[in-house]
Amino acid sequence: MNGDARWLAAAAALAARARPLSRPNPGVGAILVKHGRVIARGWTQPGGRPHAEAVALDAAGEAARGATLYVTLEPCAHQSPRGPACADLVCDSGVARVVIGCMDPDPRTSGSGMARIRAAGIAAEYHPSPACEASLSGYLISRHRGRPEVTLKLALSLDGCIAMASGESQWITGAEARAHTHAMRARSDAILVGGGTVRADAPRLDVRLPGLAERSPERWVLTRGEAGEGWRALSSPQAIAAMEGVQYLFVEGGAGAATAFLAAGLVDRLLIYRAPILVGGRPALGDFGLASLAGAHGQWRLRERRQLGSDALEVYEATPCSPE
Amino acid sequence: MNGDARWLAAAAALAARARPLSRPNPGVGAILVKHGRVIARGWTQPGGRPHAEAVALDAAGEAARGATLYVTLEPCAHQSPRGPACADLVCDSGVARVVIGCMDPDPRTSGSGMARIRAAGIAAEYHPSPACEASLSGYLISRHRGRPEVTLKLALSLDGCIAMASGESQWITGAEARAHTHAMRARSDAILVGGGTVRADAPRLDVRLPGLAERSPERWVLTRGEAGEGWRALSSPQAIAAMEGVQYLFVEGGAGAATAFLAAGLVDRLLIYRAPILVGGRPALGDFGLASLAGAHGQWRLRERRQLGSDALEVYEATPCSPE
Repeated sequence: MNGDARWLAAAAALAARARPLSRPNPGVGAILVKHGRVIARGWTQPGGRPHAEAVALDAAGEAARGATLYVTLEPCAHQSPRGPACADLVCDSGVARVVIGCMDPDPRTSGSGMARIRAAGIAAEYHPSPACEASLSGYLISRHRGRPEVTLKLALSLDGCIAMASGESQWITGAEARAHTHAMRARSDAILVGGGTVRADAPRLDVRLPGLAERSPERWVLTRGEAGEGWRALSSPQAIAAMEGVQYLFVEGGAGAATAFLAAGLVDRLLIYRAPILVGGRPALGDFGLASLAGAHGQWRLRERRQLGSDALEVYEATPCSPE
Repeated sequence: MNGDARWLAAAAALAARARPLSRPNPGVGAILVKHGRVIARGWTQPGGRPHAEAVALDAAGEAARGATLYVTLEPCAHQSPRGPACADLVCDSGVARVVIGCMDPDPRTSGSGMARIRAAGIAAEYHPSPACEASLSGYLISRHRGRPEVTLKLALSLDGCIAMASGESQWITGAEARAHTHAMRARSDAILVGGGTVRADAPRLDVRLPGLAERSPERWVLTRGEAGEGWRALSSPQAIAAMEGVQYLFVEGGAGAATAFLAAGLVDRLLIYRAPILVGGRPALGDFGLASLAGAHGQWRLRERRQLGSDALEVYEATPCSPE
């Protein structure tokens, strides 16, 4: 990575702090750099305002003059009752240069944010940044596909079971893996489980991590019937397109829900927690309509692998050629 | 590792060349070291004779005087029509010191090999070596438990399937993983599959690697009935105790055979080839009698992990507390 790519990656890391409370807005990160040092930074605030650039520029004040602004997403070009357009703030700030990691597909901005900055005589460059794109994945999928990004969590034994034949499922994975799942919930806008899981386990699906309890996401159940109190009903995987304000959906199972989302081609990311045990019980997935083994290959790309206590976490992303 | 442990590990690596053609004898490795350099080496020859020490001492000749002999297994104390006792060869060789990585549980030797060497005025030390023990695992298990070491191979999708629901199983894993399986066969004395696998796939189970075709092991099928031509019948997992001259048994599936061996507590090592695909088909294992999830934990210890093309290989060993 060159210097610009590194600063963009730093801005992308900062953007993680915005997720998920920035909803319905994208979680953006911004860094002001002058003489090789960070002089201010910002990320989208809860509820979506102020934007990351506004926070960073406000923090820097006059010091912003001559600095370079690194921002994960193109500054917005649209006025809103909730605040000024970031492109205008940038024009007025005195920054010398703007580096953008991802262009905004929002039709109200979509290139005009960068154009307005350039028209003000400020160097503005788009440096495509995988880190910035990854940090905005839910927002970008929502814009491009009109639905949330779907992460499917599977907590499995070596032989791919999610429970014993009796249904006993506590616990396959250990405490570290379960804490990681809670952190993933805290980064999600909504969680979904199947109707059978709700009936069998009555899961709380809350975030049991110190300081993050208020981040417990909306709870959805995949059912054609009514949802119980505190739950919302999703009639089919395809119905996620109507989830308002949800960029990041975390599907926690069980096998029926997981199979339904895979059958619909609506899984963007797999989170597999793998425990070093054999169970010989209930499989994680049913038949999701795979036509041939050849067709199963090349659909998933390993993006991350780490050890969580005695369990392993693997994160796979659907390859661009995956069917939808 | 100190110097002695390193030389023993080197001898253990050498011992791999003896496997499996040394059968019915253990595959032993020996290294003669003088002034910090290897002056000769040996491993058990096909059919079991000459032994590793005899090969190394013969290669060194007079140069053996004053050297240190590192040997993975205690030199044998018993005369045989097929050759002299290694302990006697060592006593006559002029070596100054003998370092042994593993004592021989064979009652004909079992300490008397080392004692005879010491009685000749040669320093003989037993340095317990995990590398040497691992290189002799099949021999040690045969001696201690009266049965071969059992390695269960599972070629799985992420969700633990060995085939599609239709039975289609070619291929879950890729060419590199399959080549590794052939290498594992070449290191085994016998291979076993279930009756269903024989009927469905008519597997050849030979070693399709250049130069190793003659190492294709005995082929066994788990069946109460008759075995077909070229196959031998095993009536139950427990019947492995009667397999003559077999130290290393490689169980290649299918689900029925794998489940039967696990249910019998007769799996010492798991070899899991994991492909980055989802299948939603036939599970690797059936119910092998697990009483509770708590009981599933702590049974398997990860010993090795490596990438084979797009697949991952994980090797687990049963922990000493595992039931048998």
